[in-house]
Formats: sequence, structure tokens, C-alpha cells
Amino acid sequence: MTTPEAREEAVLEAVRKRRRRVNEAIPEELPVQKPERLYEASRYLLDAGGKRLRPTVLLTTAEALADVEPLSTDYREFPTLYDDVNADANADATDTIDVMDAAVSVEVIQSFTLIHDDIMDDDDLRRGVPAVHREYDLETAILAGDTLYSKAFEIMLGTGAEPSRSVEALEVLATTCTKICEGQSLDVTFEQRTDVTPEEYLEMVEQKTAVLYAASACLPAILLGADDETVDALYGYGLDIGRAFQIQDDVLDLTVPSDQLGKQRGSDLVENKQTLITVHARDQGVDVDSLVDTDDVDSVTEAEIDDAVAELEAAGSISYANEKARDLVDQGKRRLEVLPDNEARHLLEELADYLIERGY
Amino acid sequence: MTTPEAREEAVLEAVRKRRRRVNEAIPEELPVQKPERLYEASRYLLDAGGKRLRPTVLLTTAEALADVEPLSTDYREFPTLYDDVNADANADATDTIDVMDAAVSVEVIQSFTLIHDDIMDDDDLRRGVPAVHREYDLETAILAGDTLYSKAFEIMLGTGAEPSRSVEALEVLATTCTKICEGQSLDVTFEQRTDVTPEEYLEMVEQKTAVLYAASACLPAILLGADDETVDALYGYGLDIGRAFQIQDDVLDLTVPSDQLGKQRGSDLVENKQTLITVHARDQGVDVDSLVDTDDVDSVTEAEIDDAVAELEAAGSISYANEKARDLVDQGKRRLEVLPDNEARHLLEELADYLIERGY
Repeated sequence: MTTPEAREEAVLEAVRKRRRRVNEAIPEELPVQKPERLYEASRYLLDAGGKRLRPTVLLTTAEALADVEPLSTDYREFPTLYDDVNADANADATDTIDVMDAAVSVEVIQSFTLIHDDIMDDDDLRRGVPAVHREYDLETAILAGDTLYSKAFEIMLGTGAEPSRSVEALEVLATTCTKICEGQSLDVTFEQRTDVTPEEYLEMVEQKTAVLYAASACLPAILLGADDETVDALYGYGLDIGRAFQIQDDVLDLTVPSDQLGKQRGSDLVENKQTLITVHARDQGVDVDSLVDTDDVDSVTEAEIDDAVAELEAAGSISYANEKARDLVDQGKRRLEVLPDNEARHLLEELADYLIERGY
Repeated sequence: MTTPEAREEAVLEAVRKRRRRVNEAIPEELPVQKPERLYEASRYLLDAGGKRLRPTVLLTTAEALADVEPLSTDYREFPTLYDDVNADANADATDTIDVMDAAVSVEVIQSFTLIHDDIMDDDDLRRGVPAVHREYDLETAILAGDTLYSKAFEIMLGTGAEPSRSVEALEVLATTCTKICEGQSLDVTFEQRTDVTPEEYLEMVEQKTAVLYAASACLPAILLGADDETVDALYGYGLDIGRAFQIQDDVLDLTVPSDQLGKQRGSDLVENKQTLITVHARDQGVDVDSLVDTDDVDSVTEAEIDDAVAELEAAGSISYANEKARDLVDQGKRRLEVLPDNEARHLLEELADYLIERGY
């Protein structure tokens, strides 16, 4: 039996190893070129860090599908799952797939959404550095996000996949981006409402956050040529763990000290952000809007947050969120049964656990 | 011999007839759905008007390529230029192409760039109505632009073209969007510089404006299956007329009364925007920065603008811009010789003339 700490360390090590490869690929796919200021701004947040969880899900799913030893295969020349009988007839098709292109594309989309979200939320900090619209300016931040948007499509077009699979991958990418916008729009709308149901909240989270995990999990299946059942199951796995990830993020916002969190603890409460916790608490009769008596995130005290958390705990709202996240992760793990039973699939299961067991 | 007025009226009538079809297709491709506020904001500028010049170029090029009578063929079921011997082997391929999808996609991209440009330039008015960030708010305008961006890709994926042609069309769309961002970034940088050369200016205009005309002209060739020579020639035609269009826009900003222009005449001078006219005038020793003695567009007088225009005319700068635009249009028209000699090709020639002969 391994300890939980040893298990978490093993997952983190697996993430770190893939992150290193992704970090090498980003400047290859997105070199700083003319006009330099635009591309420097586009790379700023990507270069500032990030766990690369979505690319890790994508690369590990590819390894599970191809049934190869983790980290043993060049992500730039990954074997397909089919014998391409039409390869000679189609000059665009290659024998191998650049799954790293797909991984970078997904991370580039994530970065674009963060840059524009920080403008919309007027957040000053991200990953411990100034937000792009603070480090540069509003114009440059809007344009940097827009540039990453089209670059993600360009990069996804470079996988070398057979055209009909490329088209399907681009459809997933485009509809994913549309859903992220819809989810962000719902999130903004919810700040004005006090009657959001848990179902509405989970739908918003699905669109805003989970669809990009879903895309990350199903894209290698599409590009490598898996069957529809496998594509659908992996999409479901991504939706489940993506929702669980966001619920855990909401829990951590209340429970992790500010210095570890990289931002003020309890900022969601101060900013009236709906979370599964506040939606549940309101349902239990808690006067959520009065839990914190300020609308300025810099002036809230630790004691105020402690009292608010105690009240949310007493209402069972934090346990409720933890249980919901656990259920989603268990459901997601069960969907992985479509994959061969191998080390990479096992890692995808542990990644799912990690998303709700992580401390920050 | 037809008079210039009769010729212009004929072009405008052709544009109007296609615009009507495009305006019918926009709500079909971009229905207002949940979340309503987001989709209403996304449609706001599209519904406010616009000549639909880029879709007109696209639809007319399709007609010229297919050698059909203008307006005689359903844009939703347009004949391809090839016998698809693999049609049975490929379930995604259809016998006809929905070129209207491509036309709407290009107009949706144009609308996205205008929404984000208006935020960046902090412009209040567009097409006679408030800019989206004024009618709604900054958050909604950023998100509306982002939504249109991915929707344009979704719509372009619906043409029914054979997958390898769809992939090529999406590559054109993605690289076009990247270039538009690069051009907009250059344009912003130029405002701080006094040593921009005509060549640099024309390169910026090519990226910011002309590439979308180029995409409009070459996309039907790609989707309908024309040869590479034809695709390249049409791309060149679009680049030429797109640059001419922008140069003419710069001339009109100085010469057309404010009420016809829909914004203050001379606003480019007040806002220190580089144009081919100011770049040339500076080269001739004109102190361009002192031509208008204000940096507030609302307080500039008609007399100040008249004096500035007189000085620019005396330096030969307005004639220079007019001649450059005329040269580009003539060059673009010559490129159309790859097309069959038919009525639609003739209309593309007249459209090119119209872009630099139009009064506003």
C-alpha cells in the first residue's frame, strides 16, 4: 500500500515530466516574431508558469490509447491506432500524429481565456505576476488574447492527422471555445442573481471550465483514430474531472491561506461569485450576501473569512461540495474502462483523484 | 458607353442583392440563443448594417469560378468544379458546397474585429449606433467578439466541402485572423512613430485590412476545388483591392463631410493615425503633427481640417494616395484573367473600381 502523500508525489512527478516537454514545445509553436511586443504579450502568461494539467491529460490519454509505456514515445511522432489504407492516396496524411501540437493548442486556448477573463474581472495578479493588461495595457491584452485564439487553430492544424480527423478536431476546438464564452457569460450573469440552483451552477462550470478538459481528453482519440464510443467516453471523463476541478477550486478559495493561494482567501465571497458552496448554503437558509461585510477584497480580514467558513461548514455546504466533487471523479474514472488496462490509464485515474485532493 | 454614375449604380445594385441574401443567412447561422445577452451583443453590430462588401466579393468570385449567371444559383448548394471520384468513399463530402457559410464566416470575423477595435480605440460610434462596449459594457463586448471568433470557425466548418479542402479553408481563416491581429498591433505602434515609410504603411494595411479581402476572394476557389494558380491569383486580387480600399478610406476621412462619414471628418489627423497621406506628406517635409492643433476629436473645427487638407493637397499627398489606390486596383483587375470571361468576373472588376470611386 502506498501512502496518499506518495501517490500525490507520483502524480506530480508525472505532471512535471510532461510539463517540461510542453514548455519546450510552446516557444517552438509560438515563437516571438514581429511585431515583438504583441508576441511577447501573447507569451507572457504562458511563460509565467502553470501546471499544464490539460496538456498532461491530453498526452497521457494518447499514451493510454496507443497502449505505450508512459513517456517512452515521441509526442511529435505518435503512432496512430489504424492502418491507413488511403495513406498513399492522400498527400496530407502522415503515418504519425504530432499530439504535442494538440496539447500546446489546448494550453494556448486556456491562456487566451485567462488573459481576457482577467480584463473582464479586472484582476491584477495571475500566477504571481501582473495580469497581461497590467503588465502591458488593455489594447495589447485584448490583441494578445485574440492572437493566441487564432494561433491555437493554426497549431491544431499542424498535427498531420488525416483531413477528416483534423476537421473533427477543429470542430471540437471551435465548439469548446464557444461554450467557454457562454459559460463565462453565465458566470457574470450569476453574480447579479440569488436564485441560482446547483444544476445551473454545474451547467455553468461545465461550459466555463470542464469543456476544455473534455476536449483535452477526447482530442487524442479523434486524432489517433479511436472509435466513437471511446471518443465519447473520454469526453465524459474530461467533463467529470473538469467540473470536479472547479468545485475543488471553489473549496480551496475558502480553505487555503492567501500566501499559498496566490490571491486573497475568500475572494469569491467578497466578489459575490456563485460557487456550489454558496448555492447550497443559500438553499439551506444561510444569508450568503451578509457572510462577509465588505465588497473590497483588500480590506476583508482573516477573522471575517474564518467566521464565514465556519457558518458554511455548519450548513454542510463545504461537505456537500467535497462529496459532489468526489462523485464526479469516481464517475469519470469509471468511464476510463474503455481504455486498455495500462499504466497511462492508471495515471489518468490518479490525475482525477489529484484534482480534488490537491492542496492548492 | 455607360456613365460613371450608371456604372456605380449597377455595382451597388449587385451588392444590395447579395447583401439581402447574406442578411437572411446571418440569423440562420448565428441565432440568438442562451445566454441571450451574449448572443444579442454578438449580433448587435451585424444587425446594425454594413455593406457586406467582403461576402459580396466571396459570392461573386464563386459565381465567376463556376461560370454561372450571377444570382442564378443557390449559394447554399453551389456546384463544385470537379468530379469527386472519391465521393462515395468519403461520407463527409457532398456534391455541392454551401458558399454562403463561407461568406457569413468572413463577415462574422469582420464584425469580431470591429467590436474589439472599437474597445481598443475607445470609439463610441460604429455604423451610426453605439459601439458594443458602449451599448452593453466592456466585459460583454470582449466576450461577444470572442464568441463571434469561434462561431466563424464553426460556420466555416459547415460548407460541406471535402475534408482536405475544409482544412485548407480553415488554415486560410486562422492565418488571416493572426495577420489581422498583427496589423492592428502595428497600427497602434505607428501612432507613436514619425518615421513610418510608405512600404511599412502598406504592409500594415495589408495585414490589418487586405488579408480579409484576400481570404474572401480565394476561399471559394479552395472550397469549390480550383487549381493553386487560381487560388493564388484570387488571393492577390483581394490583397490589391483591400489595400486600395483602406487607402481610399484614409482619403475619405479627410474629404467627406462628417454627416456623410458617420464620424468627425479628419479624425485620423486628430488621433495621430498614420495614413499613406501623412506618411507621404512627412516625407515631403510637411510638419504633419502640427497640421491640427488639438488632440480632442470633438473640438476640432471644419476650418482647421480645411487648412490641413489644403496643405496636404499642396504637398501632392492626396494625389499620391489616389494614384497608389488606382495602381493597386488596376493590378488586382489584371489578376482576374485566370477566371472565365463572364458577367461575374466583370462585376469583380467593377467592384474593384467602386472601392476607390465610392464617395463614402
